[in-house]
Amino acid sequence: MSELRHDPVQKRWVIVSSDRGLRPGDFEPPPGEPSHDATCPFCTGNEPHTPGEIWRHTNGSDWSVRVVPNRFPALAVEGTLDRAAHGHYDTIRGVGAHEVIVESPDHNATLESMLPEDVFGVMLAWRERLKDLVRDRRLRYVLIFKNHGEAAGATRRHPVSQLIATPITPRTVTIELQSAREHFLLKERCLFCDILRQEFAEQHRIVYVDEHFVSLCPYASRFPFETHVFPREHRHDFRLTTDDRLRALGRHLQVVLRRMGKALGNPAYNLMLHTSPNAEATVTRPNYWTTLEADWHWHIEILPRLKRGAGFEWGTGFYVNPTAPEDAARFLREVDA
Amino acid sequence: MSELRHDPVQKRWVIVSSDRGLRPGDFEPPPGEPSHDATCPFCTGNEPHTPGEIWRHTNGSDWSVRVVPNRFPALAVEGTLDRAAHGHYDTIRGVGAHEVIVESPDHNATLESMLPEDVFGVMLAWRERLKDLVRDRRLRYVLIFKNHGEAAGATRRHPVSQLIATPITPRTVTIELQSAREHFLLKERCLFCDILRQEFAEQHRIVYVDEHFVSLCPYASRFPFETHVFPREHRHDFRLTTDDRLRALGRHLQVVLRRMGKALGNPAYNLMLHTSPNAEATVTRPNYWTTLEADWHWHIEILPRLKRGAGFEWGTGFYVNPTAPEDAARFLREVDA
Repeated sequence: MSELRHDPVQKRWVIVSSDRGLRPGDFEPPPGEPSHDATCPFCTGNEPHTPGEIWRHTNGSDWSVRVVPNRFPALAVEGTLDRAAHGHYDTIRGVGAHEVIVESPDHNATLESMLPEDVFGVMLAWRERLKDLVRDRRLRYVLIFKNHGEAAGATRRHPVSQLIATPITPRTVTIELQSAREHFLLKERCLFCDILRQEFAEQHRIVYVDEHFVSLCPYASRFPFETHVFPREHRHDFRLTTDDRLRALGRHLQVVLRRMGKALGNPAYNLMLHTSPNAEATVTRPNYWTTLEADWHWHIEILPRLKRGAGFEWGTGFYVNPTAPEDAARFLREVDA
Repeated sequence: MSELRHDPVQKRWVIVSSDRGLRPGDFEPPPGEPSHDATCPFCTGNEPHTPGEIWRHTNGSDWSVRVVPNRFPALAVEGTLDRAAHGHYDTIRGVGAHEVIVESPDHNATLESMLPEDVFGVMLAWRERLKDLVRDRRLRYVLIFKNHGEAAGATRRHPVSQLIATPITPRTVTIELQSAREHFLLKERCLFCDILRQEFAEQHRIVYVDEHFVSLCPYASRFPFETHVFPREHRHDFRLTTDDRLRALGRHLQVVLRRMGKALGNPAYNLMLHTSPNAEATVTRPNYWTTLEADWHWHIEILPRLKRGAGFEWGTGFYVNPTAPEDAARFLREVDA
């Protein structure tokens, strides 16, 4: 029996068709990977091969995290925005930033296998780069994401996250911001806090919860084992996360990724941070910032890329999810990792 | 130099980053494929293995196109809709239709290699199934699509298109309907007709044009070599296409797919028909239909799935297209096929 479910955040219907019933055993683990690559520009010793270092974190003697510009950036830092019309169309010069966050000097490290202190370094890099980039008023949004594994679009094994700062807010985030704003204007409550209250009451879709964070498989999950991570308290801006909470987030992410790895055979995945846009850049909307503080709630989306789970949505523009989120959450709750 | 481009139909920004410059030679052709599979339920002789035939087209002695229910349907025809709230969420029972349009008895046929008369049979199947299904007032939208090749999500080699009829309109289509409606309310002109006028004036993004149809690479293409096909005259509903025009569409599609095949090494692709929703089912909005006739313009989207073109958008929720649509269109115009 299948069901259509509506995502109140993305305003999107998803077909949850659980009799197709993908189970953890249905997924293929990726092939083995080399432990070190001397030709990898991100490995120790090859630091001179990357363009000028932007930020680094040290843990003991040498670096544990480095941020460098992407060598083939989708957007360039130089220049003015040049917003223009082109007949019926609109165009903006490709100004922005595209950076690589090298998460470890170790070629085959993973976020879940790293030392907690080194994962903290990665969280710190995310926060510090956000803080730095939002000072650039040309940039409306700073998107931090991670493509892990070839099926997720990663071109190298070396563990990295990426950052792309744009003069526009990506549509996915815009739709979420609008849903949250509408909900708040009507009810004076945060949409995400409301969702979390319902999820805590029902329990079925919760994967892991600790003092500060909660991970769950969303009610209208697009993909099998899709998992979102939220701060339990209302927090709109990742930049304001304290060091202590970043440490807690790193530990939380490690638990979730370990469970996913064990249940699904170390799947490829995409991870995205949805934080508040750079409201200081939206000069035309003076009250935008104040309202965001009340109506937005940052979160992280983790989308495992499972062999049999993909394809349909490309042909249709909408999603058929063969694993009910309640089943996915139960598997991830019960796995011993 | 990269550029952000706005799609006025999907209201989406895309980064067109043409210095990454993917060229036809960069794409890998898929591996060779068997010419016949006795275990394939869609091959001649195995007709009894498919669930009850819904429609067939004959060309000479035997069938050339058959429509059968999907054996693992995402949605089932039986039952009432049962729209319900689930706390903050909304749900609808998974009522709908999921059908397979077997495009040929020949296991390794392709739309571009088939006889024109047999492609006409496929177009006819699309139209006739649409006509039949919109009589079901539970169903708001009938989506016809085709996943060709493994990278596009096809599970079998046998040439098929699919149809999925849903009690909701997919979000992608909804956004397009809204954009077209807004444009019409402001200007009393069809958004798509306006786009076509600009494209004919500029010529740069046109791939192929004949008496009745035009194919072009959209200004804000998400993917390299993305191509959309439009009737040149304003037409809102695929169901109203005459037999003659269906024949012309089949011939047009064959030319476009042949050029794509030759330029890109027979790529996997997704194809989607965006026609008007089932306005007769939207009983609450009596004037919806009349307006659709003026503001909507059906079209077909073809998205080649090229090896190096994918991945980024999964991590970010927005698109970086490494091939400028003007370059893509020039390649497809000039290819000798």
